[in-house]
Amino acid sequence: MPTTMSLAVKLHVTSSFHLGNSTKTTSIPSFNAKFRPASISHFNPLISTLYEHRMSNSPKSKSSFVIKSSLIEPDGGALVDLVVPGSLRAAKTAEAESMPKVGLTKIDLEWVHVLSEGWASPLRGFMREDEYLQSLHFNFYRMKDGTIVNMSLPIVLAIDDATKERIGSSSNVGLVAANGDLIGILRSIEIFKHHKEERIARTWGTTAPGLPYAEEVITPAGNWLIGGDLEVLKPIKYDDGLDHYRLSPKQLREEFDRRKADAVFAFQLRNPVHNGHALLMNDTRKRLLEMGFKNPILLLHPLGGFTKADDVPLDVRMQQHSKVLEDGVLDPETTIVSIFPSPMHYAGPTEVQWHAKARINAGANFYIVGRDPAGMGHPTEKRDLYDPDHGKKVLSMAPGLEKLNILPFRVAAYDTEAKKMAFFDPSRTEDFLFISGTKVRMVGFSRI
Amino acid sequence: MPTTMSLAVKLHVTSSFHLGNSTKTTSIPSFNAKFRPASISHFNPLISTLYEHRMSNSPKSKSSFVIKSSLIEPDGGALVDLVVPGSLRAAKTAEAESMPKVGLTKIDLEWVHVLSEGWASPLRGFMREDEYLQSLHFNFYRMKDGTIVNMSLPIVLAIDDATKERIGSSSNVGLVAANGDLIGILRSIEIFKHHKEERIARTWGTTAPGLPYAEEVITPAGNWLIGGDLEVLKPIKYDDGLDHYRLSPKQLREEFDRRKADAVFAFQLRNPVHNGHALLMNDTRKRLLEMGFKNPILLLHPLGGFTKADDVPLDVRMQQHSKVLEDGVLDPETTIVSIFPSPMHYAGPTEVQWHAKARINAGANFYIVGRDPAGMGHPTEKRDLYDPDHGKKVLSMAPGLEKLNILPFRVAAYDTEAKKMAFFDPSRTEDFLFISGTKVRMVGFSRI
Repeated sequence: MPTTMSLAVKLHVTSSFHLGNSTKTTSIPSFNAKFRPASISHFNPLISTLYEHRMSNSPKSKSSFVIKSSLIEPDGGALVDLVVPGSLRAAKTAEAESMPKVGLTKIDLEWVHVLSEGWASPLRGFMREDEYLQSLHFNFYRMKDGTIVNMSLPIVLAIDDATKERIGSSSNVGLVAANGDLIGILRSIEIFKHHKEERIARTWGTTAPGLPYAEEVITPAGNWLIGGDLEVLKPIKYDDGLDHYRLSPKQLREEFDRRKADAVFAFQLRNPVHNGHALLMNDTRKRLLEMGFKNPILLLHPLGGFTKADDVPLDVRMQQHSKVLEDGVLDPETTIVSIFPSPMHYAGPTEVQWHAKARINAGANFYIVGRDPAGMGHPTEKRDLYDPDHGKKVLSMAPGLEKLNILPFRVAAYDTEAKKMAFFDPSRTEDFLFISGTKVRMVGFSRI
Repeated sequence: MPTTMSLAVKLHVTSSFHLGNSTKTTSIPSFNAKFRPASISHFNPLISTLYEHRMSNSPKSKSSFVIKSSLIEPDGGALVDLVVPGSLRAAKTAEAESMPKVGLTKIDLEWVHVLSEGWASPLRGFMREDEYLQSLHFNFYRMKDGTIVNMSLPIVLAIDDATKERIGSSSNVGLVAANGDLIGILRSIEIFKHHKEERIARTWGTTAPGLPYAEEVITPAGNWLIGGDLEVLKPIKYDDGLDHYRLSPKQLREEFDRRKADAVFAFQLRNPVHNGHALLMNDTRKRLLEMGFKNPILLLHPLGGFTKADDVPLDVRMQQHSKVLEDGVLDPETTIVSIFPSPMHYAGPTEVQWHAKARINAGANFYIVGRDPAGMGHPTEKRDLYDPDHGKKVLSMAPGLEKLNILPFRVAAYDTEAKKMAFFDPSRTEDFLFISGTKVRMVGFSRI
């Protein structure tokens, strides 16, 4: 567990509810005017409570209030760390050797990585059926004390009939990578049916052929899922020259602490950084400073796991991200570039919750959400797979994400009048040039 | 609002948690032995808390404790009633006449009925987009005070392009039945896109052709959904000779009060009553009496809205239900037969939550759940559409249903040794004759 800071800061927040049949808005001008949050609905009862509490106690100071800020608490209160301590490695390895083995695909291994570092805290392994059903139906996971944490994507391990047969009545299995390396142990296992069609339908809201993750990962997988408590024998490394970018949530939190961050704003992306992105990120920091934060730190957090074939490869993206920092487009003092090891589902409103939740675990309390996050074109119809607004709407309503501040992404485009990238002004549409993110992935705009 | 009773009763309860990675069970022998609840997981934090509280205060009396019981509170605290008072009817009718009109199908009218009587409390009309998205993604609805109530099925009204055009910028619309009758008003409307494929995928977990509700209701419907606050000009009646069976949640609560019920157990069915059902219902009452309740009342509650073509028609079912009461198979003193006006989705684990939630609003605090509730065969594959166990599992985890006691359905069959219907004893399988519910719908067993 990293030490957390405790700083008193001024916070100006807009908290807008539109739940049920009525709308309730508590807004503070400085934030409201700049971010235009009226277009999305926030749901952050904590902030509302604090604000109302303050309101009722001292009605005079309506426009600002003081809360204690520190790095946001990980889901479940403590970061999960499933890597076996060095002192136990030999004994655990010997134990694993004696167990029935389950083979891991490249993408299974990415999930082992995600789980082992606590990105999915408080989840301690591949989901058992109860966890899977809660995730699939409700996008949450209810802890034993009744606390609800967000858990929108099933994090599961599939096995085929032969493997199930081989496991027999064993309670524990050893996990083996494709190259034969022994990776870890899954304990107190539970094997249950892999209802693939239902999993795909409830995760993506479609079963159309051509969903990259469904076609490459789910459909070819076995008919069973195996859940259990995970132990990983040593930290997962890829030896691709990019491991130094792969900071764990614990390492990120330590770095935020070291830099004395009093706000962390995360920017998920799977495409190269565009000047429009840079403008947005710099602008976000400026706004957070105006809100009273002393040192907002940007977590520029490209996704590093499975992506579809026509996305830009990770190494190219990382070179480009580095260049942006070198060129001073983003300030290295207030920016951390790191790889988020999760595979990509392209599951729109369902997936964006996972992207946000994992960043809470890494210490981010602000999350920038754009148009159609984690969206893609419909695989068989000429339209977006998701309503482009649903990502941010669903994110603002999602169970367990109430503590996260959601920042709407302002669209930037080339302003032919000002001759530079600027935030799009709908009153003079004709002055702006939008660069297609579909044709030229290097400048991908819309989906992050 | 009906007056609610307040009686002190003894309650013996089994409350078994299996959430997260561990299992916690608090069981009391009398209930446990008879109902075998170990096979499903309950989640009822209220009862657990009371039980643990009692445990810690007086460790000697472990096997019983006293709680105050009354009719369970409706979701949101008060039953919604959207029928315009008689004194305002003429004025509201005149007002509705002047509004743009939206036509209602037969099934839309069933939903108007459902909404108007508060079965979906606290929902006050067809869903706006925020409510729709919460229902679709999380199966809940978050009230302004942060309370979460269950809301697993989208309750929506579809309109086509021409109707949307006709409505223009009006805030309110009049609702008109197929026969031209003016039914009600929808106020402060919001029109949003009807993403049919996504709605079907997330509700049913499949998009396979042949889902009755999807094919007959959703696919032919318009491309837009219209939400708003509903006002109904007068109570919905069908004039089919069965209206006297259609008791509203308010009327049911009044009847439970009149009978001094201290427990209400609901049995949802869409097939004729079988002797096995009767055995189960009588046995449930016996167990509730043993648990210390003085007067448990059975709500035998056949679904009366849309059903698929090969289900037994409502009038035939009602005749059969009456006969069962006349014959004394069920005791009329402790049984209320009433029609639940909802249409049927056949959406398995998603729909069973709606069936349970609506019965909470009618005053039921115990809900009997069977194998594969609201399930059906997969429309294109030779298998059940849902895992037969998922209905009761999902019900036990569902947000907003924590206050409901879920009773597992015990399977009954003809015992050739005892020469009568009896609960199936797996230790002597050969003695039991199962009557197929698929071929002979009159004795439909498995799905309720």
